[in-house]
Amino acid sequence: MPTLYLIPTLLADDTAEQTLPPYIRSVIEKTDAYFVENVRSARRFITGLKTSRVIDETTFFELTKDTPPADTRRQIQEMMERKRNVGVLSEAGCPGVADPGSVVVSMAHTLGWRVEPLVGPSSILLALMASGMNGQSFVFHGYLPIERQDRARALRYLEKEAQDRQQTQIFMETPYRNDALFADVLANCQGNTRICVACNLTGPDAFVRTLTVKEWKTQVPDLRKKPTVFLLL
Amino acid sequence: MPTLYLIPTLLADDTAEQTLPPYIRSVIEKTDAYFVENVRSARRFITGLKTSRVIDETTFFELTKDTPPADTRRQIQEMMERKRNVGVLSEAGCPGVADPGSVVVSMAHTLGWRVEPLVGPSSILLALMASGMNGQSFVFHGYLPIERQDRARALRYLEKEAQDRQQTQIFMETPYRNDALFADVLANCQGNTRICVACNLTGPDAFVRTLTVKEWKTQVPDLRKKPTVFLLL
Repeated sequence: MPTLYLIPTLLADDTAEQTLPPYIRSVIEKTDAYFVENVRSARRFITGLKTSRVIDETTFFELTKDTPPADTRRQIQEMMERKRNVGVLSEAGCPGVADPGSVVVSMAHTLGWRVEPLVGPSSILLALMASGMNGQSFVFHGYLPIERQDRARALRYLEKEAQDRQQTQIFMETPYRNDALFADVLANCQGNTRICVACNLTGPDAFVRTLTVKEWKTQVPDLRKKPTVFLLL
Repeated sequence: MPTLYLIPTLLADDTAEQTLPPYIRSVIEKTDAYFVENVRSARRFITGLKTSRVIDETTFFELTKDTPPADTRRQIQEMMERKRNVGVLSEAGCPGVADPGSVVVSMAHTLGWRVEPLVGPSSILLALMASGMNGQSFVFHGYLPIERQDRARALRYLEKEAQDRQQTQIFMETPYRNDALFADVLANCQGNTRICVACNLTGPDAFVRTLTVKEWKTQVPDLRKKPTVFLLL
């Protein structure tokens, strides 16, 4: 039965051995087409796994937040009629989480297609595991507002939710804005609120530290251009 | 530097090749002690990976929801003084998520210990990927109330949160109560609310289906004793 495979990709270069189960290679051997955020990096990922798959016989459909849903629907219907196995790839980590991939998965369910999620690295899940915060009740918010006042308001709201519900609050930022976000966290949250910074996960210089706002103020980390997940409780 | 490793275990029997990166074996080779929910299944998991590790030279500390935190703190401090690598294992899936593991991780941060999360299967994350629901805003609630009226109220609350925030709501149940929970979902949620059922993930009979409440009513699945994650949007 043709299947829609949700295939995780690497978070850091040269970490396949560390972060991907062997099964992913065998799925790639039998997958004919992919929905991807970026064709170039998807090709590089597949080539890097050194399977017997000939990359030039593989079809790539671009799926970004700007792709018209009608295009995606037509592409998935065609693959279904031709009984192809199709993969979904994210730019980094697990497709369908914090990326536009869920659109194609949702369509696959509507069409009655079999969907199989594969194991691989997710910066959000790894950060939650390593945070030491509540893993029995947590929320992922994606990106916070960019505008400073809105962001300050959002942070105070997350802090209140965390306190009221004893619920871990998880959020991200575009790497080049991490330092500005973290400064706002320290400026707007209470001294005894715990903040976890999970940086460059799976990379050689990865670190995860959970400290209070008061403690972080004495040792502000350099997060510039480093993919980072933030958690608050 | 001694490290606290967060080591995922299998969700279904005989799926190491499919769900664990090779790196996990090399971490187990160099880990001397573990915090585990259940010593017997932890030993079975480690033995099953067929590393060179001699299981009788490995120390196991039980860490359940009833373990006194003072015991855990004493154990982790002793391991730290002896500069041991320590692992945390959950009964199934990723430690620190939907289990009592976060207690030891939190203590490790307080003591300044290095924490490294490893990649492996999480039924929550796999279910979210495969649901086709919003992966940019989601909440995990753990278990819902057991008492029927409380549970009905909780379900209606989740449905309202999903609508108001366009946020995927994720919850679980003890496998032998799955059918009762699912009946309550169908009885209390609106016809066009989407429900994803992610059942026996990574197992040979795994399935993930997202349908509306109205559609599920015509094809109620048998979920008895099958580990299942439920998602609502």
